[in-house]
Amino acid sequence: MTQTSDATAASDVTAASGAGVASDAAVGGDATAAGDPVTAGPARVDLFFEPNGTRVRVPPGVTLFDAASWNGIAIDSTCGGHGTCKKCKVRIVDGVVPVSPLDSRAFSPGELRDGWRLACRVVTATDVRVHVPPLVTRPKAATVGVGRQVILRPAAQKRYLELDEPSLADQATDLERVLAAVDDLELRADLHALRVIGRVLRAADYKVTAVIVDDVLIDVQQGDTTGRVYGIAFDLGTTTVVATLLDLSTGTPMAVASMLSKQQPFGADVITRISAVMMDPETLGRLTGLAHESLNELAGEVCQQAGVDPADVLEVAMAGNATMTHLALGIDPEPLGVAPFIMSTRLWPEVLAADIGVSVHPRARAVVFPSFGAYVGGDITAGLLAAGMDRDARTRLFVDVGTNCEIVLGNRDWLLGTAAPAGPAFEGAAIRCGMRAADGAIEVVTMTPDRLELKVIGDAPPAGLCGSGLVDAVAELVRLGLLDRSGRLIPEEDALGVAPGLAPRLTQLGKERVFVLHWLGEPGDVAQSIYLSQRDVRELQFAKAAIATGWDILLEEAGLQPRDIQQVLLAGSFGSYLSPANAIRLGLVPRLPVLRVVSAGNVAGEGAKMALLSMRERAGALALLEEVRYVELSDRADFNDRFVEQLQFPA
Amino acid sequence: MTQTSDATAASDVTAASGAGVASDAAVGGDATAAGDPVTAGPARVDLFFEPNGTRVRVPPGVTLFDAASWNGIAIDSTCGGHGTCKKCKVRIVDGVVPVSPLDSRAFSPGELRDGWRLACRVVTATDVRVHVPPLVTRPKAATVGVGRQVILRPAAQKRYLELDEPSLADQATDLERVLAAVDDLELRADLHALRVIGRVLRAADYKVTAVIVDDVLIDVQQGDTTGRVYGIAFDLGTTTVVATLLDLSTGTPMAVASMLSKQQPFGADVITRISAVMMDPETLGRLTGLAHESLNELAGEVCQQAGVDPADVLEVAMAGNATMTHLALGIDPEPLGVAPFIMSTRLWPEVLAADIGVSVHPRARAVVFPSFGAYVGGDITAGLLAAGMDRDARTRLFVDVGTNCEIVLGNRDWLLGTAAPAGPAFEGAAIRCGMRAADGAIEVVTMTPDRLELKVIGDAPPAGLCGSGLVDAVAELVRLGLLDRSGRLIPEEDALGVAPGLAPRLTQLGKERVFVLHWLGEPGDVAQSIYLSQRDVRELQFAKAAIATGWDILLEEAGLQPRDIQQVLLAGSFGSYLSPANAIRLGLVPRLPVLRVVSAGNVAGEGAKMALLSMRERAGALALLEEVRYVELSDRADFNDRFVEQLQFPA
Repeated sequence: MTQTSDATAASDVTAASGAGVASDAAVGGDATAAGDPVTAGPARVDLFFEPNGTRVRVPPGVTLFDAASWNGIAIDSTCGGHGTCKKCKVRIVDGVVPVSPLDSRAFSPGELRDGWRLACRVVTATDVRVHVPPLVTRPKAATVGVGRQVILRPAAQKRYLELDEPSLADQATDLERVLAAVDDLELRADLHALRVIGRVLRAADYKVTAVIVDDVLIDVQQGDTTGRVYGIAFDLGTTTVVATLLDLSTGTPMAVASMLSKQQPFGADVITRISAVMMDPETLGRLTGLAHESLNELAGEVCQQAGVDPADVLEVAMAGNATMTHLALGIDPEPLGVAPFIMSTRLWPEVLAADIGVSVHPRARAVVFPSFGAYVGGDITAGLLAAGMDRDARTRLFVDVGTNCEIVLGNRDWLLGTAAPAGPAFEGAAIRCGMRAADGAIEVVTMTPDRLELKVIGDAPPAGLCGSGLVDAVAELVRLGLLDRSGRLIPEEDALGVAPGLAPRLTQLGKERVFVLHWLGEPGDVAQSIYLSQRDVRELQFAKAAIATGWDILLEEAGLQPRDIQQVLLAGSFGSYLSPANAIRLGLVPRLPVLRVVSAGNVAGEGAKMALLSMRERAGALALLEEVRYVELSDRADFNDRFVEQLQFPA
Repeated sequence: MTQTSDATAASDVTAASGAGVASDAAVGGDATAAGDPVTAGPARVDLFFEPNGTRVRVPPGVTLFDAASWNGIAIDSTCGGHGTCKKCKVRIVDGVVPVSPLDSRAFSPGELRDGWRLACRVVTATDVRVHVPPLVTRPKAATVGVGRQVILRPAAQKRYLELDEPSLADQATDLERVLAAVDDLELRADLHALRVIGRVLRAADYKVTAVIVDDVLIDVQQGDTTGRVYGIAFDLGTTTVVATLLDLSTGTPMAVASMLSKQQPFGADVITRISAVMMDPETLGRLTGLAHESLNELAGEVCQQAGVDPADVLEVAMAGNATMTHLALGIDPEPLGVAPFIMSTRLWPEVLAADIGVSVHPRARAVVFPSFGAYVGGDITAGLLAAGMDRDARTRLFVDVGTNCEIVLGNRDWLLGTAAPAGPAFEGAAIRCGMRAADGAIEVVTMTPDRLELKVIGDAPPAGLCGSGLVDAVAELVRLGLLDRSGRLIPEEDALGVAPGLAPRLTQLGKERVFVLHWLGEPGDVAQSIYLSQRDVRELQFAKAAIATGWDILLEEAGLQPRDIQQVLLAGSFGSYLSPANAIRLGLVPRLPVLRVVSAGNVAGEGAKMALLSMRERAGALALLEEVRYVELSDRADFNDRFVEQLQFPA
């Protein structure tokens, strides 16, 4: 089940800092069977990195630097991708990349002709093959999150010590001897370190490495092992689990791996899994076991990819929603699933990697992200950290689009948060021809009155419609007028006048009206087609209305208008794939200039990385808990009226 | 191997506060086979407690109150046995007990006639049967250690809480709800508590008990379980392991059990066990496993005796020497066994009962006593705590007599400590007819020029000589002049004039001179007798010289003379059984008035109890570490000369 190839990359990497991703800019391509043009155009670009041979699939607009960094390919940099250090030199081996103004200053005309570019200035637009030179500097900072530069100060660190041997005149204990040599830290030792310290000091002739996490000496190793300090950031999603191995001494990502959650057989969403636990108490142990297996397999996978000994992984971080986190820690999630939606705790105590089933260093810690509420979980805390929501002067709206949609509004002075039950439409779950964003899923739909174009994931014939394809299809139908504002497919007789080339697709399946996206069999055989049904449209309307009601109420609480929002961040693995233009068209986000709406990428995973790289950022995540005021929607008397209002599509 | 009957009691309980034990005051009794009078006289007395049916064997001089308390029999008291509360009323059912002045004030003449006495005023001298009424008061303090009264303030505690149910208007997390109700403590929760809190709150209708150890919430239980708060104090000796179950809310000892160390097959003393680990690294794991087994079996035993659920044991304390402690924690003891004798650490980190193999509450803590040095271990820290060495204004000498003899001199202003390698003579190990203090061991020897009397442990014929019998025998021979000051058995021709009745016992076995204590076969058949050999005497001389050199050097370091010592405390399971008079006679302790030399009992176990009952006393044990200055003997140039001087017996 482990996926480490292109499919993973595609769902993990997206535009980072500021620029919107024009994923609906579909243009022509090869047509496949049954008459519909199915494009393989630039809604995604393929990047191939030499010499390590990694292929990455990203939305256009992501910089080469970010795409590399987020996929475990180290590129030299001291400024972290901000265009000031001019160290991120790469050579374009194949593909066309324009010369940026900064490139002209960084390279000679001959170098530019040879394809040399600064990776942080290369905004991807077409497929390229890139050669990355080996690292020459040791960075003091790393770029992670939404364009955030993090000064490296990991909790996990090592110190190489050459100690004096004890004598009758110097009977200091082994521990005292080691601690005295690390006198800038106030350390305590754990039992594991004490179990090895005596043997290791003597076997190593008192030349040892102290292994430290936070203020605890967790191990003592023979000789100098300071070059091996690693961490693993886990994004524990309901659907997908992603692991990133980081070199904590340089901030360099070393490997990325992901897999579908092994808990899927117990339900696609958290509510179904909570119900499964309620029905059969033994299910809790099984779900916990499956979470542990998922995390541990990924840990093994990234270590193997990078040739790292798991015992050198000294800390892991885990960002997940409240239910996934409870399950991973072996805690009954039932109270999260029924009103009044109570968590066991917001902040977690000290947890070891072993407590979440991850076999790395036996005393490695696990940083578990705290949750704001039952439906604003640790993934959101991590996401807000990655997005810098609490540091930015601009008033921003953070929307993590998914079955449960988390919404945070605010700036560095105040933050309001809530959760909206959007339902599973975006996962393709309640949609007739819906499917997950996997090979064969229609992920981009563009229409003119005469013509329809599709883009399919992978080298496969169309098999169904994933969330972004659903949003595209509905948005295009609204734009063309084939769907009215109330969400009703217009009568067939009216369609001919509105979009003559598409009208034949507007038809009936049994008692329900449908719009055919792709004929799988003979044109006209609706039962054998991929279609959008009237009920599918309703599902999407419910989802978008729930989300819109959420941010609408937050705006009211803040006394603001939509125009006061200076940036909308679309987060989560689905949010990152939404077309900002269509999100606006459907009313999923407030009506704003399209450039104010940007994809923020897999912010939960980025937040987890930040926590590993910097104790300061980790503390920031805890501080966030105090800064966000949670607004509960389910007990608001006006919720239903506002929800019904928001069911309409914007004019 | 578990011993919980009389034999145990006999080796654990001894005089407590101040009074010397006259264990050499042997008087007549039934003679057994082969001509030597073997007495069952008052060197020990049997106490039988009703209604719980416990039989206890103690040296005369122990108060009924102490004997009961140290054997898990609760007697009412608020003053802790100091004769002020007059609550420790018991009724003597069988046996003769004089009326004390306090009894006359506490009881009517009729009650006195019926046998009513205050238990703390009954100094045992003969066998008695006692009825103990049920408890009526809940004590605030307990008497433990060497007559020390400890205000109850255990780290383990429970709080019964009736909480408000959560609602949409009150979405505090489960943990916040519990912690808010315990607002006088600054608590954190551990993962175990969080794993159960949600289910327990809901199953118990929000009426729960918070289970707290120190500043950690370790559990949440349904309903009111505040009546069940227990701890187990372990005295982890090299030879014997003792466990005492305590009710931490009342300070009442509930049960005591002991067993021979399961590590015995790897050697009788710590050096042999360290050597075993050095020869075969796998031995460490086996010794650790055996320590865990011993501790866990005893824990099960005391819980079963008292009808206590092991899950209600919330904390354990363990006092042991440095080697035994290292082994129990799974730490290689090799550096303790070779110069320069280095410990892993003096202070231990947080350890769970599970880390030392004890299956009680899964999150129960283990208080592990810190060591001063490789040969002044946690048992001595516990012993000094129990003896109040750091609180007493008097200058006192604390001597824990054993294979390794620990010696501490000082008062509340200063403390000096050292360790002297006494060798195994006191364990009966290097002695020809030596044996452990078990059934059949000669434990008391008294002589006149004409006659010899023995006292044997248990209802058994004499089988060998244990440590206290050895000391008695040698002291009596010195007193009568059958041994000269240099430790040589006098010529047989001289013996007839010195002690005509004993002279025939002075004879030869092979090339060695021996003194026969008991004929097992025909009188005259030396090979079939229990005897003391010339070499046995030398072994004892080496042992006593090592000890005497130790305290002599400490006196010199302190600038004091022996007469400046106001009290000598004989500690350890062997020290407590030594006759103070004979200890003085042999020069094991300084030449002082005999009343200044007292038995202190099993102080290590008492210190462990104190740590469980009082956080303040526990902190005191840590403070002691800073207060004792360790004097290393092995690197002193003058050690050998002084040792040779001390080989002689005092004039």
